[in-house]
Amino acid sequence: MVVLVKPNAEESELQKIIKQLEKNELELTIMRGIECTAIGLIGDTSQIDAEQLMLNPIIERVMRVQEPYKKASRKFHPDRTIIKAGNAEIGKDKTFTVIAGPCSVESKEQIEEVALSVKNSGAKLMRGGAFKPRTSPYSFQGLELEGLELLKGAREKTGLPIVTEIMSPRMVEIFDRDVDIIQVGARNMQNFDLLKELGKTKKPILLKRGLSSTIEEWLMSAEYILAGGNPNVIFCERGIRTFETYTRNTLDLSAIPAIKKLSHLPVIVDPSHSAGMNWMVEPLSLAAMAVGADGLIVEVHNNPAKALCDGAQSLDMPQFADLMNKLKKMGNSLGINV
Amino acid sequence: MVVLVKPNAEESELQKIIKQLEKNELELTIMRGIECTAIGLIGDTSQIDAEQLMLNPIIERVMRVQEPYKKASRKFHPDRTIIKAGNAEIGKDKTFTVIAGPCSVESKEQIEEVALSVKNSGAKLMRGGAFKPRTSPYSFQGLELEGLELLKGAREKTGLPIVTEIMSPRMVEIFDRDVDIIQVGARNMQNFDLLKELGKTKKPILLKRGLSSTIEEWLMSAEYILAGGNPNVIFCERGIRTFETYTRNTLDLSAIPAIKKLSHLPVIVDPSHSAGMNWMVEPLSLAAMAVGADGLIVEVHNNPAKALCDGAQSLDMPQFADLMNKLKKMGNSLGINV
Amino acid sequence: MVVLVKPNAEESELQKIIKQLEKNELELTIMRGIECTAIGLIGDTSQIDAEQLMLNPIIERVMRVQEPYKKASRKFHPDRTIIKAGNAEIGKDKTFTVIAGPCSVESKEQIEEVALSVKNSGAKLMRGGAFKPRTSPYSFQGLELEGLELLKGAREKTGLPIVTEIMSPRMVEIFDRDVDIIQVGARNMQNFDLLKELGKTKKPILLKRGLSSTIEEWLMSAEYILAGGNPNVIFCERGIRTFETYTRNTLDLSAIPAIKKLSHLPVIVDPSHSAGMNWMVEPLSLAAMAVGADGLIVEVHNNPAKALCDGAQSLDMPQFADLMNKLKKMGNSLGINV
Amino acid sequence: MVVLVKPNAEESELQKIIKQLEKNELELTIMRGIECTAIGLIGDTSQIDAEQLMLNPIIERVMRVQEPYKKASRKFHPDRTIIKAGNAEIGKDKTFTVIAGPCSVESKEQIEEVALSVKNSGAKLMRGGAFKPRTSPYSFQGLELEGLELLKGAREKTGLPIVTEIMSPRMVEIFDRDVDIIQVGARNMQNFDLLKELGKTKKPILLKRGLSSTIEEWLMSAEYILAGGNPNVIFCERGIRTFETYTRNTLDLSAIPAIKKLSHLPVIVDPSHSAGMNWMVEPLSLAAMAVGADGLIVEVHNNPAKALCDGAQSLDMPQFADLMNKLKKMGNSLGINV
Repeated sequence: MVVLVKPNAEESELQKIIKQLEKNELELTIMRGIECTAIGLIGDTSQIDAEQLMLNPIIERVMRVQEPYKKASRKFHPDRTIIKAGNAEIGKDKTFTVIAGPCSVESKEQIEEVALSVKNSGAKLMRGGAFKPRTSPYSFQGLELEGLELLKGAREKTGLPIVTEIMSPRMVEIFDRDVDIIQVGARNMQNFDLLKELGKTKKPILLKRGLSSTIEEWLMSAEYILAGGNPNVIFCERGIRTFETYTRNTLDLSAIPAIKKLSHLPVIVDPSHSAGMNWMVEPLSLAAMAVGADGLIVEVHNNPAKALCDGAQSLDMPQFADLMNKLKKMGNSLGINV
Repeated sequence: MVVLVKPNAEESELQKIIKQLEKNELELTIMRGIECTAIGLIGDTSQIDAEQLMLNPIIERVMRVQEPYKKASRKFHPDRTIIKAGNAEIGKDKTFTVIAGPCSVESKEQIEEVALSVKNSGAKLMRGGAFKPRTSPYSFQGLELEGLELLKGAREKTGLPIVTEIMSPRMVEIFDRDVDIIQVGARNMQNFDLLKELGKTKKPILLKRGLSSTIEEWLMSAEYILAGGNPNVIFCERGIRTFETYTRNTLDLSAIPAIKKLSHLPVIVDPSHSAGMNWMVEPLSLAAMAVGADGLIVEVHNNPAKALCDGAQSLDMPQFADLMNKLKKMGNSLGINV
Repeated sequence: MVVLVKPNAEESELQKIIKQLEKNELELTIMRGIECTAIGLIGDTSQIDAEQLMLNPIIERVMRVQEPYKKASRKFHPDRTIIKAGNAEIGKDKTFTVIAGPCSVESKEQIEEVALSVKNSGAKLMRGGAFKPRTSPYSFQGLELEGLELLKGAREKTGLPIVTEIMSPRMVEIFDRDVDIIQVGARNMQNFDLLKELGKTKKPILLKRGLSSTIEEWLMSAEYILAGGNPNVIFCERGIRTFETYTRNTLDLSAIPAIKKLSHLPVIVDPSHSAGMNWMVEPLSLAAMAVGADGLIVEVHNNPAKALCDGAQSLDMPQFADLMNKLKKMGNSLGINV
Repeated sequence: MVVLVKPNAEESELQKIIKQLEKNELELTIMRGIECTAIGLIGDTSQIDAEQLMLNPIIERVMRVQEPYKKASRKFHPDRTIIKAGNAEIGKDKTFTVIAGPCSVESKEQIEEVALSVKNSGAKLMRGGAFKPRTSPYSFQGLELEGLELLKGAREKTGLPIVTEIMSPRMVEIFDRDVDIIQVGARNMQNFDLLKELGKTKKPILLKRGLSSTIEEWLMSAEYILAGGNPNVIFCERGIRTFETYTRNTLDLSAIPAIKKLSHLPVIVDPSHSAGMNWMVEPLSLAAMAVGADGLIVEVHNNPAKALCDGAQSLDMPQFADLMNKLKKMGNSLGINV
């Protein structure tokens, strides 16, 4: 971190800042020029609140060189984190894990049929929404606890671990007990109250990127969970909000190599929500593997035309089987197990 | 709402959709062309889930003519809603209400000194953060319940009602009891769990716009609160996330006339967080009045250089007094009471 | 400018960079820490190509402290630039200049009627498109040279100077001869070929902000014109592209105080194109004055329903007269001449 | 296209609009409901100016069903366009064409060394900037005509066709004579004057997507060239401007399947400019192939540390050779020739 001091700063004020900074366990270097002074800080600067520093009227600018996160950073944890759930090892080298299932859990028959089918096609975990974040209060909000029970039934039948979204800190205890991977949706990526509660568990957390969250903010949200004591976070890129309206969101595949470079945590891709159109799922899924993602979370339905939400973006079961075949074939050429 | 049916749709499928739509209390008109058929729906279409309709493979496109919200809509409620708190009447015609106070509550002396000062300058309510949403888990998170007590003390001394941010549905009961206006921060604008809980109270809710929320999504979040039974919502524009980095966010002042046209609910402006620089607060505040906002929420501090957060964006007390004088002067020329 | 050198850089490579930097007329200060070295550069760093520096593999990061523009910077030119055209003095303290006229020049009668009317209401210059940038090749492209002649006729009748858009470097000579202020549209803000040609004239240039241009890029485009020898640039904020679709673009009024702080050049606001809806023109115009703009460019038509383009965003002549009255009234309270 | 008429519209006004619309060669269907009337337009509606229609005060909304472009549309041209240059057939099924070369042409030795090297690695065309669009007037602007001569020399030596950027309509004649594919840069995507000039040639045009251009606007810019008589357009996705700052721009790979669905024209990807970091070029290039692009344009340098611009984003020659090997291997598994 480099702190630039204003040209006309008084020496006594400068000394106060230096004393304040010396309280942290950091190495300080003072650079004095004719018109300006800079202070270099070396060490774990993630504890420094840059905004607070900026309050001091003699400070011109604070520039971070290191990232403001530590536990999520690859610099401090060069070994990759592997998250295990059922047979899946998400984040393992040369391994591509596919999570699949319907947008919403709708009935026992539906979730069991889809779970069985995606398992047969090669999915390692199933997804399915029980609590649904909907823009309108008048839209279907999910089967809620009943949906959770249906997911548990499907898990019993198929052995597939459950990935499902949490919407309230009040549900953490139930999800910690019943669910295998807890999904935090894009709209809750900076619901810090929820993140703190999830940090108290040891359950793997699938942390979706917020619609307008920078990669750094996303890493900081993971840092909330890690700082709370839960080391099991999987990132999920699901598209960001841009001016483009042809796709529902703009899938930012550059975020995958970025996360792999900056963090030791796994990162997967959601090609269904980003595009919002099922015919785009296949090319985006292949691209996700090619760009280096650790896996996918894909919406699959037994009858998209009747889905209670987001049907237009779901694959049907044969389309999903076909996608898995293409992923396996491409994986072969790249030495990746699907 | 206009539903366009694909050119090659079978008549039997079309009849199924028509029957399904006739279940709602809406007037249907069928338009048949040589290549395409359209279905017009007239009435309260906010109950129709357009996404669900789009699932049907014979439907080409669904176009809303009316807004998907009803209780927040001015069409259904032509009279403006006025929210009362202390002496303030937010949303009253020709009235401009200013809320002011520190970013964070830091101490008894601080909050009382600032509250007294902003009251003397003409603020009608005080703000102050007790629970703070921070990007980093290592940044100061607020004095929490202790901060709430300090706010109550300052209210007792000054008579100014309290505006403060809630971060958890588990705090709704306490906030409903202790606070005068409950603020929902930008990051929680689509925390539907929290919105639903707030909809069960009758407390005025200051609903900040999400960083990447459209005006329609913002109205839909208000609809969540209104649909729950709480008619007291105040919108607060606080800047949106764009590519521009000179300002922290881009204050969207066009949203003010938009909200005034679309909704009967009041809308105020936060010039402090949007710009992130205190020298921009005055011009943006004057612009907020000129563009038709119902008021402001402004950060004011007794000593910005020592503030525990966001100091660079706070006005000090003399700067705030000066701002209030300019607002009163401009208000005079426009027939607006400050 | 601060150049951070990588921790493991070899001394010989560092010395090469230092030598390279010493070739510029800048004061260098070298800061050596245990793990990292920084080089401070003081002086006119606008000549330094930061991207080129970043090529050197031993450089970690280059951070600008000063702006990369000089001629457009207020630091180097504290006195404000005033652009004169006809009776107008754009950029003069406490002066608000209004430019008004139709989107497109359509006929002699139309442009003369509108010009006369806006003059009577208080506009100091007239606008009118002869060459029109249209997204579709099938849309009306303007009357072109014939439109320019009609503008000249209207100028003769009313005395109002002409503001009109140029689309090609091949037209610079004609525009320099015939037009009073040459407008560069948003889509051409980084048409560097055109900017260089305009820099060779002395004609005032109205430089619209690009749809996705940062404030810094906008200043750099002005720098192109200034560096070419033409000191007469007026900035025009006309809305930026964001995710919001309710308004055509998002008017960034924060850009006005930003430009006033960073540059000595005048800046005006286009409330017609940004919103794209005529009922928003009045509140945005009042806000533009309140936020400190030097003026407006407003679309006014004699019969919006028949306009060949953009009619829905134009005011009719009585609406414009009404707007001018409100601007004058508000100007009175702020000591601003309209 | 569906035109919605306002509920209270007078019959005589409605008849006027109908008459106006009947002048086009379109099939009209009138839908009358109790409160609202809609007019359906079937046929080639690309000639209809929706904005102009919206001017009519009795029209509530105009909704396009068909795209506003025709010559670029796949609906009207189901066969894919293949652009030939040298040995390359860009857009041919199961073919992936790589264009490679330095950001800027710097010297005879440099361009010839790089051209020879990328040819040996499998590139089918060479790129190299002679005229450079730079944000700052003080940055290196390219060797200009001298650079063009050096490119011609390198073509003679290697047989690789030249792809280089044009910045001015005044250069069209020279480029048409000397260059094999003319590149239109992102900043000039809506430089309509330039597009019109290029439409008069038969030369293949590489049309980069504008930084904030929607897919539809991009197609409309191609339509300008096609409407002028030049059918040879190649799209190039190079990243869009978003709030994310980690990458220079956000590569929108969803745009590739979108363009393939909407248009018959080829589309390639520029992984160098979008990310701005050379270590991201490989994963993004593989993703581009996987997502269905017709090829790549990649920056390659003989000595990135000394490049006069954009070095940090260039691959060196061995890195490029390595990339080509990976592309060939992955191409094999997908049946794609590189």
